[in-house]
Amino acid sequence: MLEKTTQMNLLYDFYGVLLTDKQRTMIEMYYLEDWSLAEISEHFAITRQAVHDNIRRAGMQLIEYEEKLHLLERYEKRRQIGQHIRELLSSASLDEKLREELTVAIESLLNES
Amino acid sequence: MLEKTTQMNLLYDFYGVLLTDKQRTMIEMYYLEDWSLAEISEHFAITRQAVHDNIRRAGMQLIEYEEKLHLLERYEKRRQIGQHIRELLSSASLDEKLREELTVAIESLLNES
Repeated sequence: MLEKTTQMNLLYDFYGVLLTDKQRTMIEMYYLEDWSLAEISEHFAITRQAVHDNIRRAGMQLIEYEEKLHLLERYEKRRQIGQHIRELLSSASLDEKLREELTVAIESLLNES
Repeated sequence: MLEKTTQMNLLYDFYGVLLTDKQRTMIEMYYLEDWSLAEISEHFAITRQAVHDNIRRAGMQLIEYEEKLHLLERYEKRRQIGQHIRELLSSASLDEKLREELTVAIESLLNES
């Protein structure tokens, strides 16, 4: 369950904005705030089954977006490359000003993702 | 028209995969292969107005995806930062092996977008 939750949190970061307001609310309650299906069902006055179906469908949509756009996969690759570049920069004998400028530029490259 | 076409080509690169097959085909014909509305309408045996509406709706969807995900905007920013890093690396006095390793890593970072 933890793995599923972690994956959903990550996918939600990238694609949550493409879901409807209601889907977003339920996904946030269930995966981010750890409400139970029963609590969500009570809150919205709908059946547990309806909550379960809504959350399952929203989760499948997030997975489908990832299968098409690969934003999470690419983000992970960029993070790995970023770490490799940080190691290159920190171990190299380098003019300090250049090291600083390169570090700032590369960190902003990694943040622009 | 050229500006619109260029924008659509770019948005299509990022979000085309989220459109339906039919939307993709029409967008490709119209914006990438420069077919006229009349030619597309004849090809599909539907009215020009229907072709126009389909293309307009698909275009609006591409714009909506960009408004939500900003992939094109972020890509442009990364390209600018990448150019700045290339300039830093080429003007710096740097061990050649390190320059080569950094260049390879940064180019793969830029390609992973």
